[in-house]
Amino acid sequence: MQNINIIVAQSGGPTSAINSSLAGVLQKAIESNIKIYGSFHGIEGILNDNIELLNNQFNQENDIENLKYTPAMALGSCRYKLSNSKKEFDIIINRFKQYNIGYFLYIGGNDSMDTVDKIAKYFKKIKLDIKVVGIPKTIDNDLVLTDHTPGFGSAAKYIATTITELTRDISIYNIPSVTIVEIMGRNTGWLTLAAGIPFFLNNSQPEIICIPEIIFSEKDFLKRVNKGITNNTPIIAVVSEGLKNKDGSYLGEDCKNGLVDTFGHTYLSGVGKYLENLVKKNIGCKVRSIELNLMQRSSSHLSSKTDLDEAFTIGYDGLTTALNGKTGIAMVYNRISSSPYSIVTSYVDVGLIANKEKKVPDKWLDLYDSNIQKEILEYIIPLIKGDVFIKKDQFDLPIYKIINKTL
Amino acid sequence: MQNINIIVAQSGGPTSAINSSLAGVLQKAIESNIKIYGSFHGIEGILNDNIELLNNQFNQENDIENLKYTPAMALGSCRYKLSNSKKEFDIIINRFKQYNIGYFLYIGGNDSMDTVDKIAKYFKKIKLDIKVVGIPKTIDNDLVLTDHTPGFGSAAKYIATTITELTRDISIYNIPSVTIVEIMGRNTGWLTLAAGIPFFLNNSQPEIICIPEIIFSEKDFLKRVNKGITNNTPIIAVVSEGLKNKDGSYLGEDCKNGLVDTFGHTYLSGVGKYLENLVKKNIGCKVRSIELNLMQRSSSHLSSKTDLDEAFTIGYDGLTTALNGKTGIAMVYNRISSSPYSIVTSYVDVGLIANKEKKVPDKWLDLYDSNIQKEILEYIIPLIKGDVFIKKDQFDLPIYKIINKTL
Repeated sequence: MQNINIIVAQSGGPTSAINSSLAGVLQKAIESNIKIYGSFHGIEGILNDNIELLNNQFNQENDIENLKYTPAMALGSCRYKLSNSKKEFDIIINRFKQYNIGYFLYIGGNDSMDTVDKIAKYFKKIKLDIKVVGIPKTIDNDLVLTDHTPGFGSAAKYIATTITELTRDISIYNIPSVTIVEIMGRNTGWLTLAAGIPFFLNNSQPEIICIPEIIFSEKDFLKRVNKGITNNTPIIAVVSEGLKNKDGSYLGEDCKNGLVDTFGHTYLSGVGKYLENLVKKNIGCKVRSIELNLMQRSSSHLSSKTDLDEAFTIGYDGLTTALNGKTGIAMVYNRISSSPYSIVTSYVDVGLIANKEKKVPDKWLDLYDSNIQKEILEYIIPLIKGDVFIKKDQFDLPIYKIINKTL
Repeated sequence: MQNINIIVAQSGGPTSAINSSLAGVLQKAIESNIKIYGSFHGIEGILNDNIELLNNQFNQENDIENLKYTPAMALGSCRYKLSNSKKEFDIIINRFKQYNIGYFLYIGGNDSMDTVDKIAKYFKKIKLDIKVVGIPKTIDNDLVLTDHTPGFGSAAKYIATTITELTRDISIYNIPSVTIVEIMGRNTGWLTLAAGIPFFLNNSQPEIICIPEIIFSEKDFLKRVNKGITNNTPIIAVVSEGLKNKDGSYLGEDCKNGLVDTFGHTYLSGVGKYLENLVKKNIGCKVRSIELNLMQRSSSHLSSKTDLDEAFTIGYDGLTTALNGKTGIAMVYNRISSSPYSIVTSYVDVGLIANKEKKVPDKWLDLYDSNIQKEILEYIIPLIKGDVFIKKDQFDLPIYKIINKTL
């Protein structure tokens, strides 16, 4: 083994694909015969020396394969925001020296790319030769400069499948009713577009789609509900958690608890309940709201094979790129073609991605236009394709790959 | 074809298996070369002449097979309670004469068995030779005199799988946190026992399980939370929607809207939110609640093959039993053995099932006892076994069998 080692960590919220990217990084490290360490709970593990050699935990057949579909983060996560202080950087540098680290791979969303950017810039400034590379992940699909994000396809598949099933469920009574399904997406509506798939494919029943990119109009919403429930029709409204009023405030923000996370994001929940009450008050028909909640990001039994395979490749290619000497970059997907679907991995300066948000483009905002629906389908459908074969135990429950802290 | 026909209908809430029972009834009718009609929206379709000949809609290869895994109810449902008036019975009798019906199969839960019982008794009283047979279904598993109910296994599988995935998800941060998962079960805790499976199998983290059969104790609940979250451990509490206080009232009932359905059941929701607030107020750690909601009964992509196969058989055998001249009965499962797992179908007087509820037995109420956990596993595990192969379209979305009203 060479004596320059690798460290890898995961950060932000889970996706069904983030362990597949970790598996890709591991595969490349093992193939290259290099020691690879895992830091538990993201950058915090590096600060606190919560670190484990991984090579020994991946020496059995299927270890890598089982990790690919294991939900959430095998190395744990954090929501720690680097303070940009010399003191913190010094701890990180000393830790990297302690483990003889030459390459740091960080798998995370746009907040985590901020961490990658800060560390890479600091290392460059002090001329420290440690390569720092970001591997993107987020179910939200809101990273700029990449065709889509690892994790989005699986979440989109879970949502499209669940909405398809719920549509069957709510249609059993021939009475007017509204089912409001609240979907993750604080500032962007990508996942809610996925909820539109069953309607876009089969325009058989009235639908309502609300995303944060479109200012919420109570009048419009109620008009669509009223139109939909004529003829005793049950309807579904799919809505992003982060719908906004005209003044930019979140819908029902005043009923929230006002909590913010360490990145200053308001803690959201309850748009579904808010709209449920709106319908109850103004229309009075049967109404219920459903929050797809954490199941959107952890239902690995419904992972998209395309997503998991791509996430593996972007992890593998990320380490390859670091070993080739690149630093301060984030890996991205470039789409070559939608039909037949084809992408390649590439990279961009991580500073161009960190803290930025890709919104649903303006040209797509007329969500009830069938040509736009066609374009959205062309974009999303390839990302949800393919089922993942999950190994089961004697009780028919999935076998996951768990990474243990041995000390 | 013989000129005595069959009519079939579905009632109550959806399950992933109720269409499989319909498929079983259809299979037997088609094999027997008998005309079979479907009534849309349960008994209401019979009252309103919303009836369709089904033979013509099931003459393609795979029609029966695709129906087996189609979620919710292909014939729609109702929650109509028969008034027991001569006027209503006369409408039913005239409708049956109109379609030359000799056999009425009703697939539903304990409320629907009440409908079967009333009609069968009335027919016997007036000496009308029409056989009336109930096919049970309910995710709640709360019917008496049957080992389990069709639909329970699939819901249990969805819940056990989802809890397994959520357990991975919530464990990513090393901070104390409580995730409360609210599971269907108004008066019985069967489905919440299924949520216990991942913990019973692998007693690796503190767990909290609350079911309606055990009076809820705020003090006990908070004590368990406090014990669980020491050492910065995230924990999951799985709770039935219908938890009750010492005085018999539902938890948080006073914050409910007071709606009742046509059978007089209080419309429940919000135990999760209630307990979330309880933890927030008394402990103050990170807490969230998740409602598994309609996904529990409609996630047919996670159906149990055992459940769907058995549901098909009980439908098939139900019609066979009716054709053999039985009436006023409900079909049931008798378990021959758990290991190897084996059941047979049988039947009982439907009056013994209607309006009764099977609770989790007293001997199982010490849910933290490992011997009891073993017994519960032995009971539930065989019911969730086997994956269902679902045919997909070009977009990788499931192909369902939809029954249309042709006129």
